[in-house]
Amino acid sequence: MDSSTPTEVTFPGTVLPMRARAPASSANLGPGFDTLAIALDLYVEVEVTPADRLQVRVEGEGRDLPTDHSHLAARVAMDVAGTEKLAITVRSQIPVARGLGSSAALTVAAAAAAGAADPLAVAAAVEGHPENAAASVLGGLVTATMLGPRPFAAPLMLDPELAFVILVPDAPLPTSKARQALSASVSHHDAAFNLGRLGMLLAGLADHHVLMREATEDRLHQTARTPLFPESATLLDELVDGGALASCWSGAGPSLLGVCTQGRASQVRDHGARALAESGVPGRALLLRADLVGLVVDGEPIATLA
Amino acid sequence: MDSSTPTEVTFPGTVLPMRARAPASSANLGPGFDTLAIALDLYVEVEVTPADRLQVRVEGEGRDLPTDHSHLAARVAMDVAGTEKLAITVRSQIPVARGLGSSAALTVAAAAAAGAADPLAVAAAVEGHPENAAASVLGGLVTATMLGPRPFAAPLMLDPELAFVILVPDAPLPTSKARQALSASVSHHDAAFNLGRLGMLLAGLADHHVLMREATEDRLHQTARTPLFPESATLLDELVDGGALASCWSGAGPSLLGVCTQGRASQVRDHGARALAESGVPGRALLLRADLVGLVVDGEPIATLA
Repeated sequence: MDSSTPTEVTFPGTVLPMRARAPASSANLGPGFDTLAIALDLYVEVEVTPADRLQVRVEGEGRDLPTDHSHLAARVAMDVAGTEKLAITVRSQIPVARGLGSSAALTVAAAAAAGAADPLAVAAAVEGHPENAAASVLGGLVTATMLGPRPFAAPLMLDPELAFVILVPDAPLPTSKARQALSASVSHHDAAFNLGRLGMLLAGLADHHVLMREATEDRLHQTARTPLFPESATLLDELVDGGALASCWSGAGPSLLGVCTQGRASQVRDHGARALAESGVPGRALLLRADLVGLVVDGEPIATLA
Repeated sequence: MDSSTPTEVTFPGTVLPMRARAPASSANLGPGFDTLAIALDLYVEVEVTPADRLQVRVEGEGRDLPTDHSHLAARVAMDVAGTEKLAITVRSQIPVARGLGSSAALTVAAAAAAGAADPLAVAAAVEGHPENAAASVLGGLVTATMLGPRPFAAPLMLDPELAFVILVPDAPLPTSKARQALSASVSHHDAAFNLGRLGMLLAGLADHHVLMREATEDRLHQTARTPLFPESATLLDELVDGGALASCWSGAGPSLLGVCTQGRASQVRDHGARALAESGVPGRALLLRADLVGLVVDGEPIATLA
């Protein structure tokens, strides 16, 4: 490339401007605490351009957050690029602090748009756990964990017949508060229980014919978090009553996920919207599909570039 | 069928004699405590024939056990058939009390040969956990768990490139002793650790290109059981040093499993045999393949009959 072009600046290994898009994600999926996530078709796009000084512009979800040096996209992009002289534009469809992986998706997209070689590693370090970021990078259903300081992530089989209904309360639930609700230890029996349910869930997500509502049962986090959102228990039942095969918290909540067949999905969404209203929980019900592409940088999917 | 034929007797729902064959299995596979198992190509065959009184005959592995009413095959077959008037022949290649699922395979085969409609349910009730029996019934890699009193079992994807080396010590390790070594509780962090490793392992067993040795790490049982078999830690390392992609305890031990590519398997077996000798642990190293058929009753695979 011609580095004399005025709108381009070369940092080590990259040329700006760059634009990156990453999907939302739903993590944990019941028994898969800090392990499983699925990419969903809501997106955040980040564009990073050289500038005289830091400028942050946000459209869509999260536009009410301060657009200064404290903005997550700014912190990530400045750290990756090694300069504050960036104009950062964020366009987001992903509700913030609702358990839909907005921070992981934003971090992945900002890191990629600033030229990071390994946006997943950047996001895993920021988040402390890699599963949302792994879904935002790889798309589809992923398993992820930390191997010491490094994230490991791999795709898992996902039945294309599945669709996803998300109940998104208007009130956010910060992840830090949700993490504080967890107990320090669990019985050996409960730890083994979650392993059994995780195996069931993965068999069921690979083939919806064997997906049963018990597959999303969990003894590591959901029950402990229920007091933070007392209506969640009823709403999870309502998703299944409305036709979902199984239901669970989305990430650390407060959003709730119903896993459905494509054929039942709109019925489940409508039932979920009514259940929200009847429970007195302001919010909306979204019908989403799995995103199977993951992170896209300057028009090219990253997962297929590797 | 003509029930007047002298060698046939009709019990409710079945006609004897029947013959059933079930494969051995390796359970847990590191992080998948009481959840994962893989069927391996060592077999037990059970034939049940009407007789004047109980007769039990055993050929091969387990032939030194008492052949009276206390024999596991006799207890299972009598319970299923509702009579003691049975001649039971057991022919087994599966070492007993070594962590290769011999009791689950024998229970499944005896139950099926005695006419049980659901041999998995019989075996899960006898064993208290269903994963070995599920592998013996379905073949291949399975996930299984109890849903209250009922077993749930489903197949998982298994890369056909994989082969399995088992180090089988001559000295048995009773499962009851191995279970007593487990702690009553674990930290939340360790419970989540196992979930992450289980996801890694399932991704790696589905595609050996992403199978890493860390995938069989576990914090629920292997370390707690090491004092029962102190040489196990070195032998597990030796399996990987010899070329296995990962290694773990087979079930509750004492057998140890190396997961290899087909191309490396004989090298890993030879290295494992030397490591046993150098550790002063009498035993043998077996190179096994996954059994993909599962339970066969009177020549018909059960899993494809369902």
